[in-house]
Amino acid sequence: KLKYRPYPSTSPPANDFALATVFVSDAQYNRNIHFDSSPQAVRLYLLYNHWAFKVLLYFFIMVNLSLAIFEEPAVFLLPLWATMLVELLCLIVFTARLVHYAKVIPPVKFWKDPKNICIIALTLVDMIIYGSLEAAKIYCVRWSRVLRPLLLVNVTEGRQLRRAFRSIRNALPQIFYVFLLFMFSLLVFSLMALKLLGKRNLKNIEGYPYFTDYLEIVFQLYVLVTTANSPDVMMPAYNAGSLFTIFFILYILINTYIFMSVFLAVVYNSYKKYLKEEIRQLVRAKRYKMARAFDVLQEQKEGCSQPVLTQASWNHIVRQVRPDITDAHRDLLWSVCDDKNQGKVAFVQLADLLNIEVITLKSRPHPLQNLFPTIYLSAPSRLICRLVQHRGFVIAFDLIILVNAVFIGLDEENPLISNSEWGFLALYMLEILLKLYVFEPRSFFSRHSFWNWFDTLIVLSALIATIINSALKSSAGYTSRQILDIVFVLRVLRLIRVVDSIKRFRIIINTLIRIGPAILTFGQLIVVVYYVFAIVGMELFKNKVKFFDNSTHPEHAYCGNPLLKGHSFAQLGYCKNNFNNVVSSFILLVELTVVNQCDGFASVTHVSARIFFVLFHIVVVIVIINIFVAFVLEAFFVEYSVDKSQLQTSLEKKIEELELAVAQYVTLTTGCHVPGKDQGRKFKQ
Amino acid sequence: KLKYRPYPSTSPPANDFALATVFVSDAQYNRNIHFDSSPQAVRLYLLYNHWAFKVLLYFFIMVNLSLAIFEEPAVFLLPLWATMLVELLCLIVFTARLVHYAKVIPPVKFWKDPKNICIIALTLVDMIIYGSLEAAKIYCVRWSRVLRPLLLVNVTEGRQLRRAFRSIRNALPQIFYVFLLFMFSLLVFSLMALKLLGKRNLKNIEGYPYFTDYLEIVFQLYVLVTTANSPDVMMPAYNAGSLFTIFFILYILINTYIFMSVFLAVVYNSYKKYLKEEIRQLVRAKRYKMARAFDVLQEQKEGCSQPVLTQASWNHIVRQVRPDITDAHRDLLWSVCDDKNQGKVAFVQLADLLNIEVITLKSRPHPLQNLFPTIYLSAPSRLICRLVQHRGFVIAFDLIILVNAVFIGLDEENPLISNSEWGFLALYMLEILLKLYVFEPRSFFSRHSFWNWFDTLIVLSALIATIINSALKSSAGYTSRQILDIVFVLRVLRLIRVVDSIKRFRIIINTLIRIGPAILTFGQLIVVVYYVFAIVGMELFKNKVKFFDNSTHPEHAYCGNPLLKGHSFAQLGYCKNNFNNVVSSFILLVELTVVNQCDGFASVTHVSARIFFVLFHIVVVIVIINIFVAFVLEAFFVEYSVDKSQLQTSLEKKIEELELAVAQYVTLTTGCHVPGKDQGRKFKQ
Repeated sequence: KLKYRPYPSTSPPANDFALATVFVSDAQYNRNIHFDSSPQAVRLYLLYNHWAFKVLLYFFIMVNLSLAIFEEPAVFLLPLWATMLVELLCLIVFTARLVHYAKVIPPVKFWKDPKNICIIALTLVDMIIYGSLEAAKIYCVRWSRVLRPLLLVNVTEGRQLRRAFRSIRNALPQIFYVFLLFMFSLLVFSLMALKLLGKRNLKNIEGYPYFTDYLEIVFQLYVLVTTANSPDVMMPAYNAGSLFTIFFILYILINTYIFMSVFLAVVYNSYKKYLKEEIRQLVRAKRYKMARAFDVLQEQKEGCSQPVLTQASWNHIVRQVRPDITDAHRDLLWSVCDDKNQGKVAFVQLADLLNIEVITLKSRPHPLQNLFPTIYLSAPSRLICRLVQHRGFVIAFDLIILVNAVFIGLDEENPLISNSEWGFLALYMLEILLKLYVFEPRSFFSRHSFWNWFDTLIVLSALIATIINSALKSSAGYTSRQILDIVFVLRVLRLIRVVDSIKRFRIIINTLIRIGPAILTFGQLIVVVYYVFAIVGMELFKNKVKFFDNSTHPEHAYCGNPLLKGHSFAQLGYCKNNFNNVVSSFILLVELTVVNQCDGFASVTHVSARIFFVLFHIVVVIVIINIFVAFVLEAFFVEYSVDKSQLQTSLEKKIEELELAVAQYVTLTTGCHVPGKDQGRKFKQ
Repeated sequence: KLKYRPYPSTSPPANDFALATVFVSDAQYNRNIHFDSSPQAVRLYLLYNHWAFKVLLYFFIMVNLSLAIFEEPAVFLLPLWATMLVELLCLIVFTARLVHYAKVIPPVKFWKDPKNICIIALTLVDMIIYGSLEAAKIYCVRWSRVLRPLLLVNVTEGRQLRRAFRSIRNALPQIFYVFLLFMFSLLVFSLMALKLLGKRNLKNIEGYPYFTDYLEIVFQLYVLVTTANSPDVMMPAYNAGSLFTIFFILYILINTYIFMSVFLAVVYNSYKKYLKEEIRQLVRAKRYKMARAFDVLQEQKEGCSQPVLTQASWNHIVRQVRPDITDAHRDLLWSVCDDKNQGKVAFVQLADLLNIEVITLKSRPHPLQNLFPTIYLSAPSRLICRLVQHRGFVIAFDLIILVNAVFIGLDEENPLISNSEWGFLALYMLEILLKLYVFEPRSFFSRHSFWNWFDTLIVLSALIATIINSALKSSAGYTSRQILDIVFVLRVLRLIRVVDSIKRFRIIINTLIRIGPAILTFGQLIVVVYYVFAIVGMELFKNKVKFFDNSTHPEHAYCGNPLLKGHSFAQLGYCKNNFNNVVSSFILLVELTVVNQCDGFASVTHVSARIFFVLFHIVVVIVIINIFVAFVLEAFFVEYSVDKSQLQTSLEKKIEELELAVAQYVTLTTGCHVPGKDQGRKFKQ
């Protein structure tokens, strides 16, 4: 049985990305067949695209990036020769990959993008210089480390990441003009603040003169845009007179609210425009290449005036491009393509057609029915089936989850509470077993049943972790903190299941799950930017601020830096927010993304830290976070106004014509009903 | 001459609002003529819409709202009988307005919306109860004060404000579901935090147990969404182990970034949908009513099979609806409407046509040319004209402005600097006089020359203020701080003019100026919400925290509340952030909008302050600020993709046909050229 997913994956960004990926590999495939049909070239190409090589490449990029953990300033310091050796190994792997790539694509295209070669060459040069200077005991900066994350963008098949970068590059000119205007507004407001407040002999809370230095004011007002120093920055003026707040309120309205919205508008607008343009180009290129592929594949059949594509070679190519789809699915696609036995027109659609997700459901009976037909089809068994499929079953288990939530919140030292955990685990196991008894296991664990997988994995791992924990406790009388943490997290995660029962929530959750992969792309983007800033930050600010685990250490009170004596940075216990190793740098950068608070560092390394933090704010908050917000907005707008494409409609029509579809919802066949007849059951997707 | 504005005011929200306003008044006008053509009814209606009555109404609403300044807790305390009397007077005015309204519109419609009557009645009841209890010395809450701002929404002709409220009401169900999911996520994360961190005996910076109380965790994590307590809330966990930051980073990603974006998406989406729906209804209603108006106005002319509208009565109605448009403009509109002498079809468009902004420019010679033709048209005079119109003139004055900016930044105690101010003022005056010499004054000060007005006003008031200041100084040897402040502000404001010279900036600035009126609507919205929260906040928290102007006061160090001894609220000097009068309440609410920091109040009045601040955050930040952002986004998207409407195109075509238009840009005729020929000069608009 071929069924439709009621929510086809048509959220444009996701779908377009998928479309582009499928298409580009198709096109490359076709081009290779066409231009260079020597079997060796094809083998080389397939080898280049082999998953093992890609995984290997990602692995070495990860190794290369994680070298920052072991280099000075390190989390675990390794000797220089060790990290150098590992980096050299990584470079060799990247070079090999590049050479392989050069063999696969035409030389002209290869030399058009020499970024990778440059990165590798520069890194090599830097390593040699650094190594020789280090041998002569001369201090030197390992500057090529900032190039490492660029490999993640360039060497890998990170098309989405590269597209995100391109989208940012395209938005830059527009952002730049708004930014200039924003800076102008900032400078004018600062000048006004200097004139209005500078001569009033006000003091800020630390007793320093307030708003007397122009650059200081500019910086303070810039930080006010990030809301980090609100309301501290305006308190001295407010204490001197309530009317001065009008100045700050106007400033916040114009710069924090209006300008930040304009930044979002500009980023969003160019993001959308760029996405549209890119899709248009892709579609045009695809049409062209598909037509060329048809030229290769076409055959002159007798009785036809025009060349056609036989079903045999069509089947052949579909099987090669998408080996995962079933025969029935392929036959369906053929019948959609070849509506009037033309071949050509429909072939162009192939890539799109392959992209529409069609779920193949086999309405096979439950395995237990085959083994013990009499028992499985007996009256009590049928009663169980009806009970499990009843709405009350879901409600009952939602209630159990809520009770469970209360029990989790209570003190687990109480033996009654800690023993109740076994009861809940048993109930959850019972639920899964009952569902497996009623629903066909392969349908239950189909690729699209996210919540079934989630449920089963959480409950099973909670069971295992709880058993290990009590085994440890009863045998050695010892509780492992780590295992207990895992048990707690798993218990709480179980509660999430409850949202799936409410339809309104499910739509939002499903959108969030669908944009998950794209969020990972943004994750990569953020990692690239963070890595660059972390490396630079470590070079500039390492060991300026120190954290002492032992609170009795004499320098603990001022983070090991006499300049911070009595400073709120040390008083608030922020000492661990430093650039002393790559992990704490990353955590500090996350904190700076949320609230750009840098008073502590500014007092230690006056100007450089301020420039660093302002730059970071511009790059991460104004550009990247806005692109992220634009992306989430777009995904939700699409979700609210989803339309099926024309091709989807024709595929749907064909499925109906061929009487393959049963219902618009995804169905799971249950063994409790007489098989053979298409009696789909509603099942929450 | 009739000219087009090159950027017609078609930003949809603004335009639609304007359209609606014009239309509704038209429709009411028509309806009155139609249903009730007694001259008394028409007079009553016109009286109701008279600007003086509207201004009076706004004045009394302002008086009513500003009563909060004089009532306990007051900025300037007035006796109870005085405020009560003023409030009674206001109520009488509102009642009179309501009675007038009831006479104007049909009774059925009047009784459909009894909100105003309820508000007035409730206020009256509350005043009586409060007054009598006060007389008996029994403490009582004046709860009806929160109803006051609702009058601003309901009694006035605040259609835009009411529309904004309706738009929020329509978005609420959608927001509610996302909010529930957000709360669920918050509760689950809090439970996880309790389980992971609660048993670790961690202490926060004040030495209290960290993350041991579930409700405390929920509140802290909610505040983390507002970014107010980042990174403080995670520092104890981070100090205990770096891995715990994963929990906080995930929390911030999901709740601060994703959920807040989803809120924006939901608000934006329903805002757009609602706007579209409203516009559709308005257009439908307009068509219907215009057709009915035509039925009233039509005449049966001989030789025509269908009834038509004569130009005389057409002129009559246009003159009554829009008395401000010129005869030439009206004739143009007639020729557009009456393309084929039909009358009916085109009449429906009248409201739209009247909405398209057409600038009437009279190409009259410069008055100096009339007075002294030989001098004005002589060679030196022509040279001046050419110089002033040269691009270099603008650049020269931009440079002067920049030099001026540097001078403003320098210390004005220096006599050289303070005297240079006179030089700059003279230069600016010279610029304006030169421009007035070259350009026709009435064109120079036309309604659409925003920057000319801005320039002249700023320079003239700076001149006056500087003269007053130096007169004071030289006569009494005394410098008024207030006048000096005004001088400084005016000087800095002059610098803004520079942005107008750069085209890229002009587009952004013009969009911002265009959305200005709508931002005022949001301002009213914010005032309504702030007022309600301020009244409630004053009732709950008045005098909990005190501010002492005299820093030697014994209670100064802890804001007059022993509970704040040693608390960071007092240490950071936040004492003036309190609810002791309506002004400081408003300022505090602004601060809360920017960063929801309420630790101080929470420590004084534990639970109630927290609930109050969370509610405020939900209403203001999640709903209203998001609507505001959605509005700015929409305005900029429209600006980036502006299309002329069909009607505008036909009007443009007609202007071209009639050879009225000269160029697509706005022109100012200058006297330096032979008049009569249409030689428009480019002039920055």
